[in-house]
Amino acid sequence: MKLWDVPVSGNCKKVRIAARELGIELERMSLDPSKGENQRPEYVEKNPMGKVPTIEDDGFVLWESAAIVVYLAKKLPAKRLLPADPRGEADALRWLFWGASHVGPNVQRLGQERVYKARLGGGPPDPAIVAAAEKELARFVPVLEQQLASQPHVLGRDYSVADIVLGCTFDSARMVQYDLAPFPAIRAWLERLQARPAWRE
Amino acid sequence: MKLWDVPVSGNCKKVRIAARELGIELERMSLDPSKGENQRPEYVEKNPMGKVPTIEDDGFVLWESAAIVVYLAKKLPAKRLLPADPRGEADALRWLFWGASHVGPNVQRLGQERVYKARLGGGPPDPAIVAAAEKELARFVPVLEQQLASQPHVLGRDYSVADIVLGCTFDSARMVQYDLAPFPAIRAWLERLQARPAWRE
Repeated sequence: MKLWDVPVSGNCKKVRIAARELGIELERMSLDPSKGENQRPEYVEKNPMGKVPTIEDDGFVLWESAAIVVYLAKKLPAKRLLPADPRGEADALRWLFWGASHVGPNVQRLGQERVYKARLGGGPPDPAIVAAAEKELARFVPVLEQQLASQPHVLGRDYSVADIVLGCTFDSARMVQYDLAPFPAIRAWLERLQARPAWRE
Repeated sequence: MKLWDVPVSGNCKKVRIAARELGIELERMSLDPSKGENQRPEYVEKNPMGKVPTIEDDGFVLWESAAIVVYLAKKLPAKRLLPADPRGEADALRWLFWGASHVGPNVQRLGQERVYKARLGGGPPDPAIVAAAEKELARFVPVLEQQLASQPHVLGRDYSVADIVLGCTFDSARMVQYDLAPFPAIRAWLERLQARPAWRE
């Protein structure tokens, strides 16, 4: 299976971790956005947005990191990264969509304002955009904190795709200076995840 | 099956349409956010964010609209709202996550700035937030336009959960003054969707 990735991307890390947990070997093609490698025609033909990650599995091209992680988990059901019963699977998708809708876009916005603007000489962070992102996160992050206060993983006792996807999102949140100090259960969960061999890069 | 909804919510509309397409009868409990009904303890116990929609299916409580629509589609596979093969299902999830990550949050932001602020006396739209949302949409919406230029539905020939979920998101986009004039294939697709009996409310 081929993976086009950018080594520092949190979204690509989700796919690399899932593959390691499942024992799927990836042929990595790392792209350098500073050289415009993600906008070359041969890549845009596979992923029209020029985003990463993209996988190709025996001719099937797939992008959107959460969709890739679910697809990989379903290839090896015996590894139990995704609950097999309909309600369990719906619960996993609930948390993946929760992260994709409410957490990921706001982390991405903080990254844009606090990290990429500075790196690209785009001026200081826009205070209105930072405040709006922080306000949204203040509404949603406590929901995960509450979820993890009484159980080790997002779905309960068992480690799953939800931990891989949300764990990488919260790891990225920390890197864009989102303050996790008020969320001890989330911090303890991230430490548990990072202790897993598949999380060490 | 019970549905807690807000009649004007685009996210709730996704669930109502999916249920009608599938012939699932919903017992609707409509909440009025202006009376704080979505923040009452008995509702927050089901959905900790006080958001809608939430369903309850024989004791199983589920929220996040896209996860609900997939759950409903999987209950009645013979109705074929979700491709049955692994690659087809991954393709559907790809487009659902694409909408949840890149389109929905920006439409929601435009709604916040252009509609809700005015309604709640919150002042004029913040130009930086509007510009950032429009810029993101300008990057992502053409990808769907390209997808629909050569095929009637998001996944190809067949109508699916991806049309229900993304169709409602783009319907909401129009309502928050997102200009669809440059996207004739998306406009034609929305007209086709709205001609379906299940889309008429």
